[in-house]
Amino acid sequence: MAATDKPKVAIIMGSKSDWPTMKEAADILDKLGVAYHVEVVSAHRTPDKLMEFAGSAVDNGFEVIVAGAGGAAHLPGMAASKTRLPVLGVPVQSKALSGQDSLLSIVQMPRGVSVGTLAIGGAGAFNAGLMAAQILANSDADLAARIDAFREEQTKTILDGPDPRV
Amino acid sequence: MAATDKPKVAIIMGSKSDWPTMKEAADILDKLGVAYHVEVVSAHRTPDKLMEFAGSAVDNGFEVIVAGAGGAAHLPGMAASKTRLPVLGVPVQSKALSGQDSLLSIVQMPRGVSVGTLAIGGAGAFNAGLMAAQILANSDADLAARIDAFREEQTKTILDGPDPRV
Amino acid sequence: MAATDKPKVAIIMGSKSDWPTMKEAADILDKLGVAYHVEVVSAHRTPDKLMEFAGSAVDNGFEVIVAGAGGAAHLPGMAASKTRLPVLGVPVQSKALSGQDSLLSIVQMPRGVSVGTLAIGGAGAFNAGLMAAQILANSDADLAARIDAFREEQTKTILDGPDPRV
Amino acid sequence: MAATDKPKVAIIMGSKSDWPTMKEAADILDKLGVAYHVEVVSAHRTPDKLMEFAGSAVDNGFEVIVAGAGGAAHLPGMAASKTRLPVLGVPVQSKALSGQDSLLSIVQMPRGVSVGTLAIGGAGAFNAGLMAAQILANSDADLAARIDAFREEQTKTILDGPDPRV
Amino acid sequence: MAATDKPKVAIIMGSKSDWPTMKEAADILDKLGVAYHVEVVSAHRTPDKLMEFAGSAVDNGFEVIVAGAGGAAHLPGMAASKTRLPVLGVPVQSKALSGQDSLLSIVQMPRGVSVGTLAIGGAGAFNAGLMAAQILANSDADLAARIDAFREEQTKTILDGPDPRV
Amino acid sequence: MAATDKPKVAIIMGSKSDWPTMKEAADILDKLGVAYHVEVVSAHRTPDKLMEFAGSAVDNGFEVIVAGAGGAAHLPGMAASKTRLPVLGVPVQSKALSGQDSLLSIVQMPRGVSVGTLAIGGAGAFNAGLMAAQILANSDADLAARIDAFREEQTKTILDGPDPRV
Amino acid sequence: MAATDKPKVAIIMGSKSDWPTMKEAADILDKLGVAYHVEVVSAHRTPDKLMEFAGSAVDNGFEVIVAGAGGAAHLPGMAASKTRLPVLGVPVQSKALSGQDSLLSIVQMPRGVSVGTLAIGGAGAFNAGLMAAQILANSDADLAARIDAFREEQTKTILDGPDPRV
Amino acid sequence: MAATDKPKVAIIMGSKSDWPTMKEAADILDKLGVAYHVEVVSAHRTPDKLMEFAGSAVDNGFEVIVAGAGGAAHLPGMAASKTRLPVLGVPVQSKALSGQDSLLSIVQMPRGVSVGTLAIGGAGAFNAGLMAAQILANSDADLAARIDAFREEQTKTILDGPDPRV
Repeated sequence: MAATDKPKVAIIMGSKSDWPTMKEAADILDKLGVAYHVEVVSAHRTPDKLMEFAGSAVDNGFEVIVAGAGGAAHLPGMAASKTRLPVLGVPVQSKALSGQDSLLSIVQMPRGVSVGTLAIGGAGAFNAGLMAAQILANSDADLAARIDAFREEQTKTILDGPDPRV
Repeated sequence: MAATDKPKVAIIMGSKSDWPTMKEAADILDKLGVAYHVEVVSAHRTPDKLMEFAGSAVDNGFEVIVAGAGGAAHLPGMAASKTRLPVLGVPVQSKALSGQDSLLSIVQMPRGVSVGTLAIGGAGAFNAGLMAAQILANSDADLAARIDAFREEQTKTILDGPDPRV
Repeated sequence: MAATDKPKVAIIMGSKSDWPTMKEAADILDKLGVAYHVEVVSAHRTPDKLMEFAGSAVDNGFEVIVAGAGGAAHLPGMAASKTRLPVLGVPVQSKALSGQDSLLSIVQMPRGVSVGTLAIGGAGAFNAGLMAAQILANSDADLAARIDAFREEQTKTILDGPDPRV
Repeated sequence: MAATDKPKVAIIMGSKSDWPTMKEAADILDKLGVAYHVEVVSAHRTPDKLMEFAGSAVDNGFEVIVAGAGGAAHLPGMAASKTRLPVLGVPVQSKALSGQDSLLSIVQMPRGVSVGTLAIGGAGAFNAGLMAAQILANSDADLAARIDAFREEQTKTILDGPDPRV
Repeated sequence: MAATDKPKVAIIMGSKSDWPTMKEAADILDKLGVAYHVEVVSAHRTPDKLMEFAGSAVDNGFEVIVAGAGGAAHLPGMAASKTRLPVLGVPVQSKALSGQDSLLSIVQMPRGVSVGTLAIGGAGAFNAGLMAAQILANSDADLAARIDAFREEQTKTILDGPDPRV
Repeated sequence: MAATDKPKVAIIMGSKSDWPTMKEAADILDKLGVAYHVEVVSAHRTPDKLMEFAGSAVDNGFEVIVAGAGGAAHLPGMAASKTRLPVLGVPVQSKALSGQDSLLSIVQMPRGVSVGTLAIGGAGAFNAGLMAAQILANSDADLAARIDAFREEQTKTILDGPDPRV
Repeated sequence: MAATDKPKVAIIMGSKSDWPTMKEAADILDKLGVAYHVEVVSAHRTPDKLMEFAGSAVDNGFEVIVAGAGGAAHLPGMAASKTRLPVLGVPVQSKALSGQDSLLSIVQMPRGVSVGTLAIGGAGAFNAGLMAAQILANSDADLAARIDAFREEQTKTILDGPDPRV
Repeated sequence: MAATDKPKVAIIMGSKSDWPTMKEAADILDKLGVAYHVEVVSAHRTPDKLMEFAGSAVDNGFEVIVAGAGGAAHLPGMAASKTRLPVLGVPVQSKALSGQDSLLSIVQMPRGVSVGTLAIGGAGAFNAGLMAAQILANSDADLAARIDAFREEQTKTILDGPDPRV
């Protein structure tokens, strides 16, 4: 990835404390050579920033937004309310309810404003990053090839270690 | 209630379809002689209106906001993000999950932005209206007396019908 | 949409009985002028067809797969296992558990194979279709404009009917 | 806050073991300069005290009651049964069910007796204290200003640390 | 049962609307020839009556209290807080959450105040009445014999109809 | 309690590993001077013993059975199927589901066979022991007095420590 | 299936009211030409019969037991406690909790006594019958062929109707 | 068990990390002298291998497949889609949802493709191995005797330690 690439993926999260989870989205994008922007944007504590960020996302060249939040997780849905870009939501594992609140707050969006929701926690963040890349790959053959290679490597790792006892 | 009363309570909801539920908030406020404003404000479909509405609520003389929404119910929390007024949230009963999604989306707010959440459905809307009145009654002795009378009447109804078989 | 457009969106579902739900994905794609392919593909009853369908989806020109299923809903995840295309999963409302089983079976994918999950039931299907269009719109300015118009119309409808009582 | 302020907020809880949670309500009230009273009142083990405490709360000058309890959490609802003051309920995180029992026991109040419920655990206690202050601020411009300042500071903290990686 | 029997079982419920459920407790007590008292006592709307009723239950000759309530069901636990009599709680099936809220509000009592909880709904009410009789039967050999006969009849009914197809 | 008292309470449990939970039932019975019998009886691994134990419980002089079990907790219900004695069930906290499975397996008994269910875990075991004593106290004035004293002591402890901060 | 076939499959259920569900197990066994025995055996109301039935199942020539029950569903697990035959459990959909109680009561068996659990309701009953046949087919090549044919027919039905709109 | 026995039981799992759970299936099969094959087969990362493995399982002489997986656990159901052998599913305990997702993803199979599901976690794996042996024992009298002996030993262990306090 050239340093001059303008990132097409934005990774936003409601709090710095979400970073250990959301870092997995960044990691897979790094691995796939996809540039991304990372920023803390809190729906509840910085609503104006969220409106501004999501409202200008198209103009800023983003093509996918990955948004992680926990508890009453309003960030992904509110970002989606302000942009026609695809928004991928990551339910961060919450303390009391283990992310069941985060999951339902993100996935149960009403007709007309859409959030594609991934699994609770780190695996969901990883897959949000991966899916962002998959979306971009529709018009980027090189990226598509890198994703295909990643998938083959992933498959090979399983095939090469069939015996769980060793 | 005199027609010139400027309403101190705003009842907002995410969709017209929430009205049969939220009407119960209006009904108890009517009964208690409390003026209120009613408006559909959708967090997801009219986010700018929500920002504007909640952001100017103090200046518009409101003292309590009652907000009802279902599913990924972001309206109460996002209203709270834009005002220091107390926001009372009503989880509207949703189709698939019976309001469990609405409840968790409203109640599990993060530290620093607060929503007082009522029960799922009509009873919750009724109690949100009632609680709005209770809040106002702290500085309105006449309203306090009307609430006390409502409570006594409610108690008397039970006391007067002790036998469930008749 | 010209009749000769080769569809970039595939809408698959585990059973004919999922159609009343999944039709909402087709409806919004119709409205947005996006061609799509519709087919029943059962993970459990036609696994070979699923492998073949998903495995050849890239070659067949698809860019997004929308997959709906209920209960132990394996269709979206297994489709994702065979393609690098973004897969959007729709949890169909199940009889006993109201789609909670469908939701968890679709959304809780492991690290490395990704499904973007929408809400349970018709709203989720609608949003899956909408999100498919949003993905395509990244490289289709006309479609982007149609989505923007849809969103503005949706907002306007709410703004034009602020009073839920009328 | 002058030492002679008679507290308008009562923080009650079912057990001493709830204090680590409920202390967060006290902390934000301290920060906002709001006087409060703290007392252990158990619905199940000291029901007469609860009746007396809640029944005389208006006469004792309280304007808001914050009540925290866990498990079959009856304290907030029973307090509300004896007073027209707004009662804010905090579901304390329970051992086996992580506060799901506390939450439902507090929030699902019947029509006519109202409890404004906050999130499970410390965040909920913090927000209950904050909301108590918000309620008082309707007739206390200085407190309103302090809350506004707290909110601005909270927003600024997020705005000043946009990069979660540092 | 002679008309002069002073009832040892009290059946109380939070609302007249609970009667169709709680009637099943009365029915089995009728069948077993056990006198009972029936009364609506609302924890939230008539708290003083509840305190009085439960507080004088021993002196009034009751030996078991059967208490049914729905939603944030505080009646059984609060009755137990005021008496050393065994209290049997019946979770009435609620509208939104089907009695899951009622069940948790009743069963999750803290150490030191005890409620024996039965199943959600009519079967639970029936079994509460039956268990009240079982408790009394420890010191009433005739009642014990009637319970034994009821149980044998119940067993015989199943044994006599082994084929579900006829 | 004289050493010659024949125990009227049986405490049974499905596994030795349930003892740390069920010991709380024994502890309160010790405190209240109520003799009890303790035995491991597994519904699934020693079904014949369970049938024999419960089937002869009346003849052996028991008046209450306290039964604790976890997971698919069949012990209380199956004991109840073989005796007309009141059976009190204690859901032991399970590993994966924290006792939600134990609770539902115990409490949701069908019409005609009754189990009085207590809270999940140690508090439930304590309360099962307490309730067993409450049942016996109906015909044992001395025990009733000891229970009253225990309750007063419990109340006094709370009243004597009203400030949670010290 | 010859009329003289001694049935190797027993279908038992806790109540006649379970038959509409459990009939689906019989239907697929009929279709596959597998003889079966059907009987109501209630764990709670006829425990001795259950002990006898399951305890003699091997001697009576059964090779698989299909057991359906709802609520606190103890039948499958208690049958398994008395036989080394494979027991397949069907959670019947319950009224209040839609079979979530039935499912957990059946599936969460402890180490050492095993129940293979199927889906809630009719689909689960169908699959229990099917799985019983699959088990028998290991030593019955004709039955294996009939199952293979059933599976092919099932696949073909989907393949022949790929368009859900017609 | 002779080293030349061709295994009739296959134990497959979605990931090496499932081995600590699935090892319990192997352990009981070892104890019962039943040969088995162990292999990592990931539904999502090695779908072709899964199709091949399950599709050839009959020809390879297997008679039962034990399949463990966590989260969106598709392995057991997809294996069942490709074979007429009985498939026993083990829900591996997942991080965020403790295996509730795994359980529902495995057990809620649609009519026509069957998975016999065991408990979440190690107990379920143990019981899956045990049930595999029970299935084989229908045509292996020696194995049946070993299972009977295992069950007797298990019963005896409980009977020999009736006092949980020692």
